[in-house]
Amino acid sequence: MSNGKVKVGVLGATGTVGQRFILQLSNHPDFELVALGASASSANKPYHEAVAGRWKQVQPIPANVRDMTVHECEPAAFKECGVVFSGLDSTPAGPVEAAFRAANLRVFSNAKNYRRDPLCPLIVPLVNPSHLSILPHQQKSMSPPLDRGYIVTNANCSTTGVVVALKALEDAFGPLDIVMVQTMQAISGSGYPGVSSLDILDNVVPYISGEEEKIEWETSKILGGLKDNDTAFDLHETSPLRVSAHCNRVPVIDGHLACVSVSFKKQPAPSPEQVAEALRAFTCEAQTLGCHSAPKQAITVHDEVDRPQPRLDREWQNGSGVNVGRIRKDPVLDIKFVSLVNNVMLGAATSSVLNAEIALKKGYLS
Amino acid sequence: MSNGKVKVGVLGATGTVGQRFILQLSNHPDFELVALGASASSANKPYHEAVAGRWKQVQPIPANVRDMTVHECEPAAFKECGVVFSGLDSTPAGPVEAAFRAANLRVFSNAKNYRRDPLCPLIVPLVNPSHLSILPHQQKSMSPPLDRGYIVTNANCSTTGVVVALKALEDAFGPLDIVMVQTMQAISGSGYPGVSSLDILDNVVPYISGEEEKIEWETSKILGGLKDNDTAFDLHETSPLRVSAHCNRVPVIDGHLACVSVSFKKQPAPSPEQVAEALRAFTCEAQTLGCHSAPKQAITVHDEVDRPQPRLDREWQNGSGVNVGRIRKDPVLDIKFVSLVNNVMLGAATSSVLNAEIALKKGYLS
Amino acid sequence: MSNGKVKVGVLGATGTVGQRFILQLSNHPDFELVALGASASSANKPYHEAVAGRWKQVQPIPANVRDMTVHECEPAAFKECGVVFSGLDSTPAGPVEAAFRAANLRVFSNAKNYRRDPLCPLIVPLVNPSHLSILPHQQKSMSPPLDRGYIVTNANCSTTGVVVALKALEDAFGPLDIVMVQTMQAISGSGYPGVSSLDILDNVVPYISGEEEKIEWETSKILGGLKDNDTAFDLHETSPLRVSAHCNRVPVIDGHLACVSVSFKKQPAPSPEQVAEALRAFTCEAQTLGCHSAPKQAITVHDEVDRPQPRLDREWQNGSGVNVGRIRKDPVLDIKFVSLVNNVMLGAATSSVLNAEIALKKGYLS
Amino acid sequence: MSNGKVKVGVLGATGTVGQRFILQLSNHPDFELVALGASASSANKPYHEAVAGRWKQVQPIPANVRDMTVHECEPAAFKECGVVFSGLDSTPAGPVEAAFRAANLRVFSNAKNYRRDPLCPLIVPLVNPSHLSILPHQQKSMSPPLDRGYIVTNANCSTTGVVVALKALEDAFGPLDIVMVQTMQAISGSGYPGVSSLDILDNVVPYISGEEEKIEWETSKILGGLKDNDTAFDLHETSPLRVSAHCNRVPVIDGHLACVSVSFKKQPAPSPEQVAEALRAFTCEAQTLGCHSAPKQAITVHDEVDRPQPRLDREWQNGSGVNVGRIRKDPVLDIKFVSLVNNVMLGAATSSVLNAEIALKKGYLS
Repeated sequence: MSNGKVKVGVLGATGTVGQRFILQLSNHPDFELVALGASASSANKPYHEAVAGRWKQVQPIPANVRDMTVHECEPAAFKECGVVFSGLDSTPAGPVEAAFRAANLRVFSNAKNYRRDPLCPLIVPLVNPSHLSILPHQQKSMSPPLDRGYIVTNANCSTTGVVVALKALEDAFGPLDIVMVQTMQAISGSGYPGVSSLDILDNVVPYISGEEEKIEWETSKILGGLKDNDTAFDLHETSPLRVSAHCNRVPVIDGHLACVSVSFKKQPAPSPEQVAEALRAFTCEAQTLGCHSAPKQAITVHDEVDRPQPRLDREWQNGSGVNVGRIRKDPVLDIKFVSLVNNVMLGAATSSVLNAEIALKKGYLS
Repeated sequence: MSNGKVKVGVLGATGTVGQRFILQLSNHPDFELVALGASASSANKPYHEAVAGRWKQVQPIPANVRDMTVHECEPAAFKECGVVFSGLDSTPAGPVEAAFRAANLRVFSNAKNYRRDPLCPLIVPLVNPSHLSILPHQQKSMSPPLDRGYIVTNANCSTTGVVVALKALEDAFGPLDIVMVQTMQAISGSGYPGVSSLDILDNVVPYISGEEEKIEWETSKILGGLKDNDTAFDLHETSPLRVSAHCNRVPVIDGHLACVSVSFKKQPAPSPEQVAEALRAFTCEAQTLGCHSAPKQAITVHDEVDRPQPRLDREWQNGSGVNVGRIRKDPVLDIKFVSLVNNVMLGAATSSVLNAEIALKKGYLS
Repeated sequence: MSNGKVKVGVLGATGTVGQRFILQLSNHPDFELVALGASASSANKPYHEAVAGRWKQVQPIPANVRDMTVHECEPAAFKECGVVFSGLDSTPAGPVEAAFRAANLRVFSNAKNYRRDPLCPLIVPLVNPSHLSILPHQQKSMSPPLDRGYIVTNANCSTTGVVVALKALEDAFGPLDIVMVQTMQAISGSGYPGVSSLDILDNVVPYISGEEEKIEWETSKILGGLKDNDTAFDLHETSPLRVSAHCNRVPVIDGHLACVSVSFKKQPAPSPEQVAEALRAFTCEAQTLGCHSAPKQAITVHDEVDRPQPRLDREWQNGSGVNVGRIRKDPVLDIKFVSLVNNVMLGAATSSVLNAEIALKKGYLS
Repeated sequence: MSNGKVKVGVLGATGTVGQRFILQLSNHPDFELVALGASASSANKPYHEAVAGRWKQVQPIPANVRDMTVHECEPAAFKECGVVFSGLDSTPAGPVEAAFRAANLRVFSNAKNYRRDPLCPLIVPLVNPSHLSILPHQQKSMSPPLDRGYIVTNANCSTTGVVVALKALEDAFGPLDIVMVQTMQAISGSGYPGVSSLDILDNVVPYISGEEEKIEWETSKILGGLKDNDTAFDLHETSPLRVSAHCNRVPVIDGHLACVSVSFKKQPAPSPEQVAEALRAFTCEAQTLGCHSAPKQAITVHDEVDRPQPRLDREWQNGSGVNVGRIRKDPVLDIKFVSLVNNVMLGAATSSVLNAEIALKKGYLS
């Protein structure tokens, strides 16, 4: 930390999430990007060569990253890193992240592998950074116990898009009972090359493998609390959530849209106006801590009848917040609304980076 | 009926629904297209001139229609017609269709204006052609009473896509309790020029004016029966349906996809396998009557996990049936599934034509 | 030929071109599909299993093909075939097609491998079926000489789209001097999964590997004749063509559009009206021979200022002809126009099938 | 100029070009936006009301513009403006811009109406700002003569995308002889609602009214010089250009791509490497004058074989420069390449603003 910054690395640096990590970390006030990891075929190449033909960002490769040497994803090359961000695919992510933690490295991962792990926090930075307090228990539970290494995960992109508004609703009106979600998800959510153009042009694919299960399960972990002296997640067990999701892929580049209907335990339920007010007023710890990547407005509520829309609203606040609109009474449940998240920003890299910024502010990186 | 065919006309002939009527009627075994109506600016032109720059069909204008003269939408030019199909926009449809009925003409309309009329049947041909039996009462209620003229409407395209499967479920398992619908609707649903490309390319618009209300209301009229000696609709009142809809516009040319979750009054609810079997087995009166435009299979159930898809499945059976897939347990309600309708075929022109074919078979055109 | 049909096989049966072959051959008056070949991973599976998840056609798998067993691409399994159609990728196509010919089988190939071979005809069926007369020489040149086996290739899809109109122009107005072509090519041209949706949604890719060279080279072989007693191609050498091509990939499912500017050797050049008349009047041997897959109109000339368009015109005549429009004076060369070909039909499978139909009529299959 | 800034107004403020003007001028170091003009139906409304439902920008309406009152397009409301930018459609632009000039106001217009006017400069800011020197003659030629008012136009968006590279080539290698251009133009080029989604989804439209003529004519005026003591344009007459254009609309939001083939008067022509070097080295007066909106690099030359691409490269330098790639030998002419311009930035509003910035630096606003 010669310049006062925490040295950081990125695993899966040539993938689409890795590219977003690089854009966010190449000029960050708290973090200094010093190490890049990718598969064996990229190892020992300068980054711009390793990523040739796959860099699909509107911005060019940052000048200070172009010639950084890419390493294989082994702890030795990352040992000076105070944080290692993982944008790995799920196949390598399981063993690699475990190996990094075992090497006493701190991993902030966008992969799905440890989200359901009873020792690993699953944190949407605008919702439940309090779950970081399980980390000492995670470290103690390792064999041998660790004094630095741990794994923190962030949520699936479509879960993230929904759960921020749900958190604001629970804070204001008490526990939810039912959550019905239907998503329309962007193609960037499946990486590169990802979705074939022949599958999605002039089309919708009403299926994304594993996605509905993630929303239905992750929501309870994220909205729930800790129990047993910060050694376990309560999974919202005192007031079990019932969640049902339909997930669809649509021909949109970035931005996951969700149609959400909810009912509350406590009746009478709030009015649409009260819901709008509560969402607008919602603030989160990332904001009060002054984190660099936190949005100014956690939830932007739109008044126009046809917003939010992916193309027009996904870049707002650099994709760090959530957009909500069309808040109205639901004829069956209590309230329905539309929610939008930038899946490649808050839905992926921004969540990991923001989780690390929060961890820094709260002392988990020292 | 010199050739044994019923002479028919088309109102709104230059619009997108009118174009579909023309394609279906230009070579039909029961009907002979003899009159075309459009706005004053098209009147007295040959059809191909009136529609110049607006014919947006993959097939060319049928040779026997190209040079037909277009008339204004006034009954005099249609008096020899046994059926008048209306593809009018809602603004002219109200007064024009009323005037045609008053002139003792039979109107089969795709417009929304008379769908909620307590005397007008709202018929999805695969679901409730039995509602035609209110027509004598409709005729008697006019002043003066009519001996031929009446108005029959068909449903909104997105309602049609959902209600066929719901009908099959109610037939097999008794009344539904809750229906949660979320649609992803094609751009052709809003006509031409309709949706601006700047609004929908790389985007989803989570709002279609009036659409959610149509689904929420029309479903009960269509799935309900008649009462009071065929003089009124019961609107499913003996077992009120609770319906909630979210409607979205997506960048798809043709084909409305819907994610549907339902619960049944009678418990235990059927299993996904029982539901699939019931949908596959469903047949309708249009089939048993041998109607020309009826699908061979009313509901095609797909086994692949990612079907139906608009681009791949909308043309199946010339768009005259409904496609259903992903039948599975709903963690909150009982069953969820995905449904697809070709909005320009069964969702529009095919419904009107099929309603008239049924009316012919059942003696309502004599 | 118990039913009077020639038994045929398809190589590369699970690929996108192979799927098109199957749709065209499953119910063909001259050919009976009896053998399917694909890669080792598909071998010994019923076709519908081998192609599961990759069948991307609007029509379902033909009922009489669903359960056909797929073989490896080895001659033994195809020995009863009078024609073997090859939809193979270029990597396997080279050795496989050579092996089939060496086994005395007739190969009609859509692959690029033998297009430049001095013994193999490169035939666009609406242009140069006369090149079949080199086949006896091809057979004699093999070692050992063959009495049945040969290879016939068809052109690259974008070349096909341009060369039909050029042929009509040369027939009417003498040799061309310069041809400037710029293409906008559909995504289906690169197979499945082919183009990533992230590369093409809201985008154009101004590069297709090898495509410009194909147009620039193939045009001279196709428009040229035979020489030296039908033992060599003259490559238009008596009046060398100068051809320049720019190729682009656009977000269109099917249909390659080309902007073409040409100049003629003989001056004064024809007027746009004369060109339109010549294109409309153009007929080809496939038509006069009465081939099943031949278009009724080889070149459809559009009068509307904004046609042809891929989505509206690609299905015309089942994609077996070429569409031309916007014929006008070129301020630099003589004439410019727009041309459209259905790349998956005439641009691929239809060409091979039509070439075989012509070969049958002309006695090359006996 | 109390704050040292020139007060400016925008005509056509609710249109798509007007919206871009507003985004560029709401926080500009040289200009202060003080007046907005639109059609009578928008007059006297606060801007956000006048533009409701039509603001289609990724950024929200600037806070300091939201509540500005919109005026009709009459000079009285703009009399304190040192510059009036016009984003008007061509129908109102003719008389309105003339009236503003007659009222002694300086108009920088994106409309086409006065581009061919022998007194009005047609300026692409990276190419021919020297044409401003005709303005004293334009003022003198008015009746009565003006001491402030004049009209400056900028080029059609597709012309702009091509002519910057052509200027660099002529500067380095002498006059061009032939220019063959084929464009693939974004939907935003035709405003809002503009292109119907039914016309462009899964499609290309090979026609844009008047566009080819604009490229073919404007190029000579822009690349030419002044003559007769700065009282007339020479239209490149000493070495007449031959230009041919094909224009197409493609499903891309922003960014016009052009395929260009050129030949030079002077032979031997430069090599592709020399061309690349000349384009990279090209600098323009807007840069040397230090204009706020000038790009750092006028022409960005891409080395990747498949660039530039609209989606990836249009935002580079905020769309103020031109992107060129695929520089290679042309088999017919001398050199071919691909060029990209952001049609809503340098192709429209940025050109007008940059022209005004140059005018300010050169003393034409005092």
